[in-house]
Amino acid sequence: MFMRIDHIGIACHDLEEKISLFSSTFDLTVVAREVNEEQGVKEAMLHVADGEGGGSYIQLLEPLSPDSPVGRFLAKRGEGVHHVAFGVPDVERAMAEIGGKGVRLLDERPRHGSMGSQIAFLHPKDVGGMLTELVQAPTP
Amino acid sequence: MFMRIDHIGIACHDLEEKISLFSSTFDLTVVAREVNEEQGVKEAMLHVADGEGGGSYIQLLEPLSPDSPVGRFLAKRGEGVHHVAFGVPDVERAMAEIGGKGVRLLDERPRHGSMGSQIAFLHPKDVGGMLTELVQAPTP
Repeated sequence: MFMRIDHIGIACHDLEEKISLFSSTFDLTVVAREVNEEQGVKEAMLHVADGEGGGSYIQLLEPLSPDSPVGRFLAKRGEGVHHVAFGVPDVERAMAEIGGKGVRLLDERPRHGSMGSQIAFLHPKDVGGMLTELVQAPTP
Repeated sequence: MFMRIDHIGIACHDLEEKISLFSSTFDLTVVAREVNEEQGVKEAMLHVADGEGGGSYIQLLEPLSPDSPVGRFLAKRGEGVHHVAFGVPDVERAMAEIGGKGVRLLDERPRHGSMGSQIAFLHPKDVGGMLTELVQAPTP
């Protein structure tokens, strides 16, 4: 079902500061920047490696407002890992398969993720406290 | 510097329960089980994918006692992502390079990680609140 660890989503207060920190500390390159109004974040993807069906990234997330999901996460837990995303070949099929095993899906249908991907989130309480994202990379 | 996202370390109260959950929900296979007395954990590695210089895994961690690092993490934050590990070709060289940029290392020299790897941890406060592990896989 999983083809790769697609990305680690890290919540931060200051996107530009953390882009500078991660790119200089680990020699990582920013390959995309986006504002996702639906999710209430501005974000950057830093490329770690290439994998089957897509790459692996560190995703830095700054909330657009304090009452967005990432804004509330920051207020409660501070900066750090917000979610983990796994690459799947077909996000709708993965949602059906995982949902059929009793794991709650936070999305009824796939929505738009970073860099043209299709994504869906799983309820963290059903998967060991880890907010889990499924990612289907766009067809090349 | 990074060759892959090596693993996501997830702290849990009951290793066997979570092995069952993750392997059945995501069709993952346990490839190693270990007790690491030095780190105060028993653990399992579930294989996600193969990558450059080593694989990618979900690592499930159950503390051996409440006063171990993972035990204290669970008491404070509950189950969830404990750390993220990145594969490097040479852990000593990566430690020197990263330490030279002002990031605090939690280990003065590499120690034994899962499946024969050499590892070192970075101070989470210096890398965006993410407890970060460097992993050099054993030579095949």
